[in-house]
Amino acid sequence: MGRTEAHGLLGTALAEARAGLAEGGIPIGAALYGADGVPLGRGRNRRVQDGDPSMHAETAAFRAAGRQRTYRGTTMVTTLSPCWYCSGLVRQFGISRVVIGEAVTFRGGHDWLAEHGVEIVLLDDPECVALMRDFIEKNPALWNEDIGA
Amino acid sequence: MGRTEAHGLLGTALAEARAGLAEGGIPIGAALYGADGVPLGRGRNRRVQDGDPSMHAETAAFRAAGRQRTYRGTTMVTTLSPCWYCSGLVRQFGISRVVIGEAVTFRGGHDWLAEHGVEIVLLDDPECVALMRDFIEKNPALWNEDIGA
Repeated sequence: MGRTEAHGLLGTALAEARAGLAEGGIPIGAALYGADGVPLGRGRNRRVQDGDPSMHAETAAFRAAGRQRTYRGTTMVTTLSPCWYCSGLVRQFGISRVVIGEAVTFRGGHDWLAEHGVEIVLLDDPECVALMRDFIEKNPALWNEDIGA
Repeated sequence: MGRTEAHGLLGTALAEARAGLAEGGIPIGAALYGADGVPLGRGRNRRVQDGDPSMHAETAAFRAAGRQRTYRGTTMVTTLSPCWYCSGLVRQFGISRVVIGEAVTFRGGHDWLAEHGVEIVLLDDPECVALMRDFIEKNPALWNEDIGA
């Protein structure tokens, strides 16, 4: 997938991240797209909103997509490099591609995914970076809680 | 942790797995215990019951435990070797120990977890094996869907 197309898909994930921030949540968003490019599900980190530590953005998008027979050809778009939990999700279910807004403020398991055949499109989106940098600076304890640090 | 103590903890996860089977679900159960041995949360696979592919047993138990400041010293008990998704959960959040009912019918990421410093207690519990063997034999498509195969 080209970077222009990837940037186009990032918009939905960014909108989810911004909506999370507006709710007082951790501003990470994600969306899952089918092999045909159709949106299957979108979501955002819901630790604060629902008191649910399992709802990282990628898991929320995967959940919103409901049961699928296969993930072959699907693309997970996320504003931030996926942590080990969400990287494991991608590997286990055979999601084909991950588009990542940025990996500057946090670096998860995307190199591991690439080693295991997942196509990684790593953007260096200034909006995604600014959103997380500002959030982490203002909420270090909440951020550390979210990544188990 | 010794095998006798581990077997004691397995009972709760097995009860969850059996309850899942009785509901028409995939019979995998899990429970998370605090460093002090206090139960923090328990759960079971809810793909069928809730139409939720993200609710693997370990994630369900983690979710039920709610927000925790740290997972240092905690033990995840599961009836079946954790898939990559749930192995990623354990690694990301720094869960210290995983007690596994069996790894005969499915082998997930527990060797990888051991390499990364997680204590693994792998039991070879005949009830856990029989439960999954029988389920997979009768529901191969559902099982494959649950592991993205």
